[in-house]
Amino acid sequence: MRIGILGSGLMGGKLGTIFARAGHEVVFSYSKTKGKLERLARDAGSRASAGSPAEAARDADALLLAVHWSRVDDVLKQAGNLSGKVIVSCSLPMNAKDTALVVAHTSSGAEQLAKKIPKARVISAFSTVPSEVLFSVFESANRAARPNLVYCGDDTKAKKVAAQLITDAGFDPVDAGPLRIARFIEPFTLLVGQLAYEGPRGPALAYRFEWFDERG
Amino acid sequence: MRIGILGSGLMGGKLGTIFARAGHEVVFSYSKTKGKLERLARDAGSRASAGSPAEAARDADALLLAVHWSRVDDVLKQAGNLSGKVIVSCSLPMNAKDTALVVAHTSSGAEQLAKKIPKARVISAFSTVPSEVLFSVFESANRAARPNLVYCGDDTKAKKVAAQLITDAGFDPVDAGPLRIARFIEPFTLLVGQLAYEGPRGPALAYRFEWFDERG
Repeated sequence: MRIGILGSGLMGGKLGTIFARAGHEVVFSYSKTKGKLERLARDAGSRASAGSPAEAARDADALLLAVHWSRVDDVLKQAGNLSGKVIVSCSLPMNAKDTALVVAHTSSGAEQLAKKIPKARVISAFSTVPSEVLFSVFESANRAARPNLVYCGDDTKAKKVAAQLITDAGFDPVDAGPLRIARFIEPFTLLVGQLAYEGPRGPALAYRFEWFDERG
Repeated sequence: MRIGILGSGLMGGKLGTIFARAGHEVVFSYSKTKGKLERLARDAGSRASAGSPAEAARDADALLLAVHWSRVDDVLKQAGNLSGKVIVSCSLPMNAKDTALVVAHTSSGAEQLAKKIPKARVISAFSTVPSEVLFSVFESANRAARPNLVYCGDDTKAKKVAAQLITDAGFDPVDAGPLRIARFIEPFTLLVGQLAYEGPRGPALAYRFEWFDERG
């Protein structure tokens, strides 16, 4: 697949690198400096390049949205026409200080995003693990029990694309249902963040659901 | 320990039974019928009995609050003076139809509960797994990697009691921090519920966090 990265910070930079190493063609875009994008592309190998958001979006099979919430409108504007595009978003609707969600409970960042680009196919994924765990999971993807990664969305075809990218990144995808489930997934991300950044065991944290036979 | 069960429905009934089987003295209270309480106590063995909420609270080392949110005020009133008591709550702040949280984002059910009983020591725990998984986890507690159970609260001593009960139930407790983290834990419960009750793999679902060595 050809994957455009909108926002090449910690999450976008690492996920783009992983997608390129997994065999996809990747265009990094929207970083503070052009040099950062070029360095990311060089380090990610021959399938990666640096470009503008419009270049990242052009002919993309999927776009990863990984900007701070305050930058969403700007990057979408720079990306241009996103009709029909699969948008996999890990952008949480955080305030400027990154201390609290600004959209929650009766809506979610993913739902607000979908309203901004109604002709695109928005999937919420990749927000629920810290960037610090991504390379560790990718490099241990041959293990028996991969960590899970939940995702949700309203478009069946787009969900298949997201599930493939989640698998390619070393996780075992868990379909959590329609896009409105992001109302639960986004606060879950803050729980994971609390454990990762305030807990004693460090930020390289993932999770796995386990189904049992029912007894009793 | 002596543990009072306030609300002997699906969660309270099963957890009380598990606590009694783990060696604690348990008093079941607050069910629709007295017969239900007596049946629960009989099935849970010689360490279990049936009583009123006030009898459950008397001399209790911990109280499990497991009523529907609409019943919280009533059961607290019936329980009487809860000063100094450890209250382990798995009561989610759901609306009457159980379709949405009525407290979220800027507060949580656990925090609202703590405001109702300011002299008690409130811990949020046990809400994050479906009742359907409890016996399965308890009966497989000797496995190498137990499922986790997150809990939070502001009182160190009460957190130790809660962690012990979580361990006794077959889980590996994860301290998620202060009580306000219930703002993230309660929506996470709804995510777990979505996977358990709307997903293809059934309701006997638990979860485990996994910490990796950080790479890259």
